[in-house]
This record gives sequence, C-alpha cells and structure tokens, in this order.
Amino acid sequence: MSLHISEKTALMPSSAIRKLVPLSDAAEAKGIKVYHLNVGAPDIKSPDCAINAVMERCAGMHHLSYTNSAGLIQLRRDLVEKYYRKIGIDIEVSELLVEVAGSEAFASAMQIAADRGDEIIVIEPYYTNYQTFAYLNGITLKAVHTSIENDFAIPDISEFEALVTDRTRAVLISNPCNPSGKLFTKEEMLKIGDFCKRHDLFLISDEVYREFCYTDEPHFSAMNIPGCEQNVILVDSVSKRYNLCGARIGCIISHNKEVMAAALKFAQSRLCPPVLGQYAAIGALDTPQSYFDEVKKEYIARRDCAVRMLNAIPGVKASMPYGAFYTIAELPIDNAEDFCRWMLAEFSHDGATTMVTPAAAFYKTPGEGKNQVRVAYVLEVGELEKAINTLALGLEQYLQSR
Amino acid sequence: MSLHISEKTALMPSSAIRKLVPLSDAAEAKGIKVYHLNVGAPDIKSPDCAINAVMERCAGMHHLSYTNSAGLIQLRRDLVEKYYRKIGIDIEVSELLVEVAGSEAFASAMQIAADRGDEIIVIEPYYTNYQTFAYLNGITLKAVHTSIENDFAIPDISEFEALVTDRTRAVLISNPCNPSGKLFTKEEMLKIGDFCKRHDLFLISDEVYREFCYTDEPHFSAMNIPGCEQNVILVDSVSKRYNLCGARIGCIISHNKEVMAAALKFAQSRLCPPVLGQYAAIGALDTPQSYFDEVKKEYIARRDCAVRMLNAIPGVKASMPYGAFYTIAELPIDNAEDFCRWMLAEFSHDGATTMVTPAAAFYKTPGEGKNQVRVAYVLEVGELEKAINTLALGLEQYLQSR
Repeated sequence: MSLHISEKTALMPSSAIRKLVPLSDAAEAKGIKVYHLNVGAPDIKSPDCAINAVMERCAGMHHLSYTNSAGLIQLRRDLVEKYYRKIGIDIEVSELLVEVAGSEAFASAMQIAADRGDEIIVIEPYYTNYQTFAYLNGITLKAVHTSIENDFAIPDISEFEALVTDRTRAVLISNPCNPSGKLFTKEEMLKIGDFCKRHDLFLISDEVYREFCYTDEPHFSAMNIPGCEQNVILVDSVSKRYNLCGARIGCIISHNKEVMAAALKFAQSRLCPPVLGQYAAIGALDTPQSYFDEVKKEYIARRDCAVRMLNAIPGVKASMPYGAFYTIAELPIDNAEDFCRWMLAEFSHDGATTMVTPAAAFYKTPGEGKNQVRVAYVLEVGELEKAINTLALGLEQYLQSR
Repeated sequence: MSLHISEKTALMPSSAIRKLVPLSDAAEAKGIKVYHLNVGAPDIKSPDCAINAVMERCAGMHHLSYTNSAGLIQLRRDLVEKYYRKIGIDIEVSELLVEVAGSEAFASAMQIAADRGDEIIVIEPYYTNYQTFAYLNGITLKAVHTSIENDFAIPDISEFEALVTDRTRAVLISNPCNPSGKLFTKEEMLKIGDFCKRHDLFLISDEVYREFCYTDEPHFSAMNIPGCEQNVILVDSVSKRYNLCGARIGCIISHNKEVMAAALKFAQSRLCPPVLGQYAAIGALDTPQSYFDEVKKEYIARRDCAVRMLNAIPGVKASMPYGAFYTIAELPIDNAEDFCRWMLAEFSHDGATTMVTPAAAFYKTPGEGKNQVRVAYVLEVGELEKAINTLALGLEQYLQSR
C-alpha cells in the first residue's frame, strides 16, 4: 500500500464557481484589475443595525462562548416573529434551527431526505454545490431540464413523473433560481407540491434569494403549499438576505418534527453556528423595509444593464432573470470554460479583465451549458458597464484568435 | 412508500455531550441553577486584542463580504508567522487552510484519509464526534484501549499493529486528549509516527488543546515527527486556544500537497469560514504570552481542585489530566447516563444541580466507560467547589434511592 488520499476526495469535483480563483489571483498579482461577475458577492452596504449589533455585543464582552447548537434563542425567536410571520410564513420557534449559512442548511436537508443510492430530482440549471453534496453523500441527482430558449420555464409535471423511481426521495429547487434567475409562480409551486405529496417526496426549497425578486407578484414560498406541511424543508440564508455574506448564518425550517430532530443531530456535531454572525443576524432583523426597496431598485437597474449589454454583443443571448442576481448568457463559442480561463490568463484591456463562471457545472445533462456562462450582476451600474464592455472586447479577441 | 427521513439520519447517534441539553434547559426553566461541567466551554476572558479587532473592523464597515475559501490571506500569514513558527511548527502559508473550527478540520481530515469501508485507528477514550463523522462517512473506528487504571498510558505499539487490516488508512489522536487529559510524550509520538510510516497511514493529530498543557515539558506536535511530513494532517483550533469558542475558527495543516488540495475542495463547497470570527482570530494572534501563563495557572488550580474533590467522594476515582480541561471520573454506579439524567431531572440541592457527561460514548469497546463521566473543569475554583459538592450530594442521594 502507498500513502494516498481517499478516492472520494480525489475524484471530488472542484467548485465550478471557485476553481478559477487561482487564475484571478494570479491576474491580480500581475496588477490586472479583475471585474468579479463570477461570485454572488454583492457590494451592497450591509444594514447599519447589523454591524452596530456586533459592536454593541463586543463592547465590554467577557468571553465569546458557544451557543446552543440550534442557535441563540433570541435569534430563533426574532427570526420567527420579526421576519417569517411578517412575510406570511407561520412557524414555531421549534420548527427553525440556525445553520452555518444556506450551505449547511441544504447539505443537512439533502442527507435528511436521502440515503446513499437514493435520488433527488433537481431542475437544471441548478446551484452547483447541490451536486457536490450529492456526490459526497452518494446521492444521485436526476434533472428536469429547463432552457434559456424559453426563459427557463418549468416544464409539464409529466417530466418530473418520468424521473420517479423507487429510490426517489426528494425534489430540490432554488426559488428564485441560482443561476437562471427563474422565479417560480404560485401555480408551478402548487403543481410541484402536489407531485411531492403524491409520491411521498420531500420538497427541499432553497429560498435564499427570496428578497431579491423583481416582479410585482409576491414570492410564493413552498412553506405555503396547502397540505405539503410534512414534505417541505425550507433552506434559507440570513447573511445573503442582508448583504452580510461573510456572517455565515442561515437556517433550516420544517413543520416535520422528524426532520428537525435530525437537523439538530447534525447541528450538535459541529457544536454551534458562528456567534458573532448570530449577533449580526439579530441586529439585521431590525432592517427597515425601505432598505429592501432600495436594494431591489438597485438590482433591477443592474439586471437591466447586464441583460441589455450582453444581448447587444454579437452572437450572445442572455436570459431575463426575475429574481436572484444572476443571468445565464449563451456565447458564440464551443467551450465557455476555456474562454473564462483565457480571459484571466491571457487577456486584458486597459489593465482590466472580467471573470464570469462557466455554466456546464450547473447542468446534469452532458454537453448542456458548455457554451454558457453565469454572470452575477453584483457591481454598480458604472462598474458593470466597464466589466461587460471588457467581456465583449475579450470575446471578440478570443474569437479572432481561434 | 411513505414519507420518512433517511436511515442514515434516523440511526445517527445524538451527541453524547449535547443530548442532555434539553434536560438542563428544562431544569433551568424551573429556576434551578445548573453547574455546567458537561461542555468544554471555559469562562476565561477572551483576549481584549481579539474582541477589539472585531470592533475595529466593524467600525465604518461597508459590507461584510465572503473571503477566500481558504480564509483571509492576512489570517493565514499571521497564523504561520506569529503562531506556528514561534512554537516551532515550520510551515508555509500554502500548507494551512482556515476551517470552521476544529470540527470542520477533523471532519475533512477523516474524509481525506478514508473512503467508505475504510478504517481509522483511534485511542479510546476519544472525542465522541470522531465517531459521529466516522458514522456519517461509513468509516469504521478501531480502538486501542487506554485505561483510567494506569492514567491512560499509551500501550505498546503491538496493540496498534494488531488492529491493522488492508482497510486501515489513518491513526487519529487527540493530544492533549479530550476527554482523558492524557498528554502524549515525544517518545510515544515518535513510535506512533514510525507505525504510520511503516503502514503508509495518515496521522491525523488533533492538537486543539496544545496551549493547555500542565507539565514542564513542551508539547510535542505530530508536525515535528522526523520523516512523517507526508503522513501528518494537523487539526487545530484558533477559537478554543484563545477562549473564543463562539468564533468558530480553526485550521487544517499538512505538508502533503494532495491533502491540502482536497481540503480546499471541501472548503470551497461551504464558500468561506465565518468572517467576523476571522477578524477575532487575527486580533487574537497578538495575545501576549503572559495571557497563556495566567490561563495555565488558572487551569492547574481548577484541575487540582476537581481531581482532589472528586477523589474525596467515596467510591469515586478521577484521573490526573496533564492537558486539556477534562478529567474522566469513575463512579460507584452501573449506568452513568441514567445518573446524569437523574441529576438534571430529579435532583437539586439549595436550588442547584450539576451537569456532567456520561462517558460511554467516548469508548468503542462495548461496556467500557458505562460507570464513568467526563468532568470539564471550566469554572473558577469557588464555583467548581460548589459544583462538585453538589455532584457529591447528588451521587449520595442517587445511591440511596436505588
């Protein structure tokens, strides 16, 4: 025998979103400015009340102790009363548990729903880390396909039915969707809920972008599908909602007592969620509605800018997103990953380049998304314009150099 | 089919350390004061420089963004230069990655070393969450037994040899040991290192209690076993070391490039470690040596108090720990878990009771530790005296009631 790492970790795919980071680090080390449209890391100001809450707790603090594995009781109560009840999601404190961001919440939810060899139905394109945690836990993702050609509309429920086997355990959706920006209608949610009930499947609903919706209709949460109370596991983020990504605070919510008991066992195994982040989250819950109204206006301006400019590039087709802060763009190339690498390693214009994410890893179906990229419109309009102009120039030069 | 959670999560054991928390919550809700000797959650003041660093970063902060998945470069550099080089662990920045506390570090290390069906050799009694993550990943723990009878001395290496099969992939130790307080000698470490080299095994060394050693000899890190550079994976905690448990910051360290590349893939899947905690960690690295000297003096006083008082209780035998802040105590009872539950649910004296952890879950060998508890001496001496007196009274009454 020789010393080698486990097969599981050797074969584990690198994050599609983060694996090009060494190339952008190298570009930045050479003095090149990189416009980061690759990660959903907004530059929007965090609410003052969140940051102030951290400072107030720190002032005169004796020691920073563990909290309950489920999170500080004040945070759990405040989440229920100041946020969920206000937006029409009616839950008890015992039906919510604080997680290390949305990431831990869906990783736990997937394991609670499915054993090794079991299957979870997803809608492609999907958030790539769903695949990572499926891989790590021996769960197979089966994908219902949606297409940029018709704005990622959810197909007839018969396409879900066609994927059901005796190992199917859950449907996992992201609404609004990262990466497509698709916002599910109430009607679509009711149909998916009905499908889950008929087949006794969990419905894991990742709603971390709930407050980033750009239509006049309110977001319809899976928690409000009538009769689906025992099926739904809600995955949510506090840090994303309040532009506090670094706080790493999210939650898992379910009316299903078995689910919550299992979630607590996972939570206890990592002792407690980050406590300074929990303080920020408690403070954030006092954020006024006007903050979200401003943020929404800002993202609509950015989205409109990104979609307009992308579609103006010859051969490029970008979809119109109705939520989250991503759009999928189809480029007139064969291999978007090669292009993204080239943009970082070989191209710059006026000392700058643009980083976007190759989209193939958001799809299960082989070959799908190979000519697509995910563009995160997370810069203010002036910077976004420069970033997309730089992308357009890079694309032109890339095409000429082939 | 009916809706039910996965078998994996249904059968997942609850945390031995945290599963009695609902009982202590209930006792506290009835107005009973609970002396918490159950969790390694010290009441020692966090260093001012750590808390101040958080406040300084927060003052005027625009938004709390993600960091690199490996952690802030400043934190990684400072850890290498201000801490590890100073204590004689010579590593490059690329050989360290910031983790969500020691918990994430050993969970990743175990998966990097072992596939499903593989085996890891541990020394019992061991930290119970090793078993949790082994269970979740289908890894079998094989235990070398150590006993309270001879102060948890490490047995002859032949007892390790006897456990080796073609599925053995690693040895996992905690040094100083949670829960026994055992501190490994240099000679013991060299023998274990030699064993790992001969069998091409990883040596996962959990040294989160390194700064809590109560002998005159310096702690000998696995990182300094000659010729073992490729085998050793170091698991460390920043938050534990500086009494910042709630910050949730640790790290994984290895000279083995394959290991670090795999650790980065895990790190990317959860985006980044908590950022406010990273700020606290950066500040903590300026903690003066006098702080640790004071802490050590304090823990020696607590340890001496705990061990003396426990051994003075009729029928109780407590071991002398040389590191960490736990001692294992053997009680004159059959079922320590039943006793711990009874202390919380049925007993109080002068409006108070004491919570300790039943020790059976720290052992792999069936039946071992059933009459033992882990006592965390994490209260100041005055409180500790009251806590152990209360424990003694409870034990007396429990024995009478049988």
